[in-house]
Amino acid sequence: MAKYKSDQRDILFNLLDVLNVTQYEQYGMDESSIKEIVTEYDKFVENEIFPTREPSDVEGVRLEADGVKVPESLKKVNKGFYEMGWYALGQPEKWGGAPCPEALSSLCLSLSTAANTAWSMYPGLSKGAMNVIRMVGNDWAKNTFIPPMIDGRWGGTMNLTEAGAGSDVGALKTTATPVEGKEGVYKIKGSKIFISSGDSDLYENIVHLVLARTPGAPEGTKGLSLFITPKFKVAEDGSVGESNDVFCSKVEHKMGIHGSATCVLNYGDNNNCEGHLIGKEGEGIQNMFIMMNEARLDCGIQGEAQANLAYMMTEQFVKERVQFKTEIINHPDVRRMMLKMRAMSRGMRALTLYTSDLFDKAKTDKKYESYIGLLTPICKSFCSEKGFEVAVEAVQCHGGYGYCHEYGVEQFVRDTKIATLYEGTNGIQALDFVMRKILKDGGKALRSISEDIFKTSNSLDDDFTFERGVFTRVLGHAQDAMGYIGKKAKKNEMNHVLQNCKDFLDMASHIVVAWRLMESAMIARDKLESAPSESEKAFLQTKIDDFKIYCAHFLPQASAHARTITGFEDDILTYQV
Amino acid sequence: MAKYKSDQRDILFNLLDVLNVTQYEQYGMDESSIKEIVTEYDKFVENEIFPTREPSDVEGVRLEADGVKVPESLKKVNKGFYEMGWYALGQPEKWGGAPCPEALSSLCLSLSTAANTAWSMYPGLSKGAMNVIRMVGNDWAKNTFIPPMIDGRWGGTMNLTEAGAGSDVGALKTTATPVEGKEGVYKIKGSKIFISSGDSDLYENIVHLVLARTPGAPEGTKGLSLFITPKFKVAEDGSVGESNDVFCSKVEHKMGIHGSATCVLNYGDNNNCEGHLIGKEGEGIQNMFIMMNEARLDCGIQGEAQANLAYMMTEQFVKERVQFKTEIINHPDVRRMMLKMRAMSRGMRALTLYTSDLFDKAKTDKKYESYIGLLTPICKSFCSEKGFEVAVEAVQCHGGYGYCHEYGVEQFVRDTKIATLYEGTNGIQALDFVMRKILKDGGKALRSISEDIFKTSNSLDDDFTFERGVFTRVLGHAQDAMGYIGKKAKKNEMNHVLQNCKDFLDMASHIVVAWRLMESAMIARDKLESAPSESEKAFLQTKIDDFKIYCAHFLPQASAHARTITGFEDDILTYQV
Repeated sequence: MAKYKSDQRDILFNLLDVLNVTQYEQYGMDESSIKEIVTEYDKFVENEIFPTREPSDVEGVRLEADGVKVPESLKKVNKGFYEMGWYALGQPEKWGGAPCPEALSSLCLSLSTAANTAWSMYPGLSKGAMNVIRMVGNDWAKNTFIPPMIDGRWGGTMNLTEAGAGSDVGALKTTATPVEGKEGVYKIKGSKIFISSGDSDLYENIVHLVLARTPGAPEGTKGLSLFITPKFKVAEDGSVGESNDVFCSKVEHKMGIHGSATCVLNYGDNNNCEGHLIGKEGEGIQNMFIMMNEARLDCGIQGEAQANLAYMMTEQFVKERVQFKTEIINHPDVRRMMLKMRAMSRGMRALTLYTSDLFDKAKTDKKYESYIGLLTPICKSFCSEKGFEVAVEAVQCHGGYGYCHEYGVEQFVRDTKIATLYEGTNGIQALDFVMRKILKDGGKALRSISEDIFKTSNSLDDDFTFERGVFTRVLGHAQDAMGYIGKKAKKNEMNHVLQNCKDFLDMASHIVVAWRLMESAMIARDKLESAPSESEKAFLQTKIDDFKIYCAHFLPQASAHARTITGFEDDILTYQV
Repeated sequence: MAKYKSDQRDILFNLLDVLNVTQYEQYGMDESSIKEIVTEYDKFVENEIFPTREPSDVEGVRLEADGVKVPESLKKVNKGFYEMGWYALGQPEKWGGAPCPEALSSLCLSLSTAANTAWSMYPGLSKGAMNVIRMVGNDWAKNTFIPPMIDGRWGGTMNLTEAGAGSDVGALKTTATPVEGKEGVYKIKGSKIFISSGDSDLYENIVHLVLARTPGAPEGTKGLSLFITPKFKVAEDGSVGESNDVFCSKVEHKMGIHGSATCVLNYGDNNNCEGHLIGKEGEGIQNMFIMMNEARLDCGIQGEAQANLAYMMTEQFVKERVQFKTEIINHPDVRRMMLKMRAMSRGMRALTLYTSDLFDKAKTDKKYESYIGLLTPICKSFCSEKGFEVAVEAVQCHGGYGYCHEYGVEQFVRDTKIATLYEGTNGIQALDFVMRKILKDGGKALRSISEDIFKTSNSLDDDFTFERGVFTRVLGHAQDAMGYIGKKAKKNEMNHVLQNCKDFLDMASHIVVAWRLMESAMIARDKLESAPSESEKAFLQTKIDDFKIYCAHFLPQASAHARTITGFEDDILTYQV
């Protein structure tokens, strides 16, 4: 099996040369401190996390009488992760964290996710739940739950889905009934499914954030409230008591992420489950969305991360494997596959880091909040899908070896697929993108980001004549597609809008990724002449190549999506299945 | 889990209305006998094969001291398959077979492959090996090996790959040394990898067809000869003796097809392995290609078959699953996914059955042999790849449930992937398509089939105005792409040709599939008015819809491939990885 390897040069190029994350003075980080964190984190990933990837896939989780057991190898790495302070990276100092630029935080998440996606979900979900408590919890909740969560004694989860309520969260039936005489405490009763990290022996206690319906609450998502519902009861004084009547009744047998426990959780079967309201009654969905939006970006990172590691591992293979008397990387068809994989993987990295960086930018310019809104469904949907496709191509480059466990690439295919499904399927992302982030917004954010894109593309000079042509043509097709959808929306022919959301999202995603690669290419080109070494020159050239490959090999697909949108005049529901 | 269901109406439409397989008088089959075979075969598939699919995936094969053990459930189905006479379907009467139209034979293979791909490979490989013996074996070989193979006592395999010889078969190192005093008998020595059905407890003996190099033979594929090398020695009189020194030293742990034994086979570790030359020395690769070409078409059928069953199972799910107060099939985005899946799955069925039917046509018109040559890499590559993509989309339509074993669709994703890899990776298919089937042929077969395509598309009338436009535009782009490749080949800029083979194959595949759907749509349209029932009318309408959906949602991608070919002027090997 190929060794773990990360593309550190490209990572630093993104953080320093493109995003210039040292600009955020509040973090007090210069280039060398950024480099040091990346290097140290990467060492931990290589030496501690990656070695658990294959064994935890083979062993998987198992449900025993007293709960879920995770593969043994994960306990050590989980412990080390907290002890080394990596979990606290990016968290506020107030809570014992070490603040850092948002893009650096995402980069670190990407490295560890790549190395073992299944494991990464335990601290990942925990962090999401903790952030909700930090942002909307009252003082008691914050002081009681955050300290044990940040030091890794307690974990956390998010609980939305039920058997009859997947995409349609508002249909959920779990109830929360106020307990008389206990302010803010409710009896929770119901069954949740697909709860990632729902149970495990990694933590002493697990803090479930549960969406439930209070008595008399309106139908749909408006009637939902959010409850902190720990696995073991937590008293006013923070002391941990008896079981809170939350039990895992099943773990799913899945295509991948075998080391991650996907649980059916039964709340209140013995009428003894208590939840603590967090935020106000009826504001559950908004508060859950604090966690959900973060999780959606993380899904994109799951795809991006695995694609980049799959690429790095495949690069080693194709440079070693000899067929027809030469390493197979010297065969044009294999070179084509590798270059496409690299352009796509690095393009996704450029996009997810750019989007993460917007959280820092948005602290001083609110405009960027709308960019985050617009780019989140793109990151989630496109990176999960293309991350999967890159993993599939990695298998293809390995030939028959790729299909065998021991080469480690087929696991990427199985592990990435989930990212297209959870946290809102990619179809739901497409609806969110078109209906909420564009139409409901009156196209404001889209116009603003489009101006940024035009500004970059207008500065493409004669080194990029072909690319300028392709990019301009695609932008034209995209405007046609947007015009078509806008017209249909105006006429209230909503099926015509809804049937095109996914193609529109895919089209827009290609353009945004190409834009990020374009900016990288221009920066690289400008640095090429004064590059301090041959190897640096070679690296910079690959950044130019990535953009060129993307324009020639991916952008025509964006035009194809546009053509599908503008060409198909029928209401798809008139076609019978 | 959804039930097994096949699309019998569409199957019969292909066999009877499109291909008119009753025209081949030698088989003496009328419509009712065709229908009876399809119905009976399908019952066997539903009741005997499909129930083994999930258990054999979970159990998998295991290597014990005395060889490979297959899941228990496969033994019964394998026995029944031979006993019911299904294995002999399509085989010559002389050998106890029941001849039938080639398309019907492929259709049956498709049904059983869909229901359990892993199991289907045991009789599948056996049949391939048997056909080689039937076609190029001497009388002794035919009389000795065919009878026990046709009645299911013996199995068969193909042995090409070695650790250093995958795509580059000519690099293989297994040796065959003549045994003095035994005419046609050679000592075989070497190690083969990735041998499907390489060992099992399904058969009393296994007939391995082994490619090996004789002393002093030239380098490369020209120096290879083919040897019948049974697991247990077979004497002149056909009696079975001791072990032939062939041992399975490892079974691969794979992404899917867990019930199929993928073996490392060691030949002659104790210098006691004997093979019988089949055909002439030095003609091994041609003779193996009898089996290989069949296997390539079968790979296409693996993709097509699983796509069609995945679609049928998903159809049940989306018509039952309610979200937002309606079955999810009523959401435009889900309808879009389903219609695309159906158009692609049925399009692949139309293509593979058409290609199979050419074997009958070629018996009276040699021209069709070149069609088979041209369409085989298309079937293999495109159907394996798109079959995988349809399986992925089936998972997507299931949401989170799709990722769980128990719904049965993620298994399609894992099981189909192998078809893009074995029997020549899809990259190798693309080279075969462009280099051998088009350029080496001087474009003769391509021109001939293109004329057939033009003839069909020219008869598209005003019911298909939009489709005529799309199709004509795509044909124009395809001609540009062909012109570009032809020009580069003429100038001997071969990297430019090689780097574009895969895009060219994909582009051509879309056109060919659209052509087959077009023909179906026109036949359906002509029958629509006089349809005997509402349900028949509804079915015929779906055939028209499939073509329309394909034109709007897939053909633009063909244009994108063409644009990639004509737009990228650089030699891809000048880009460094």
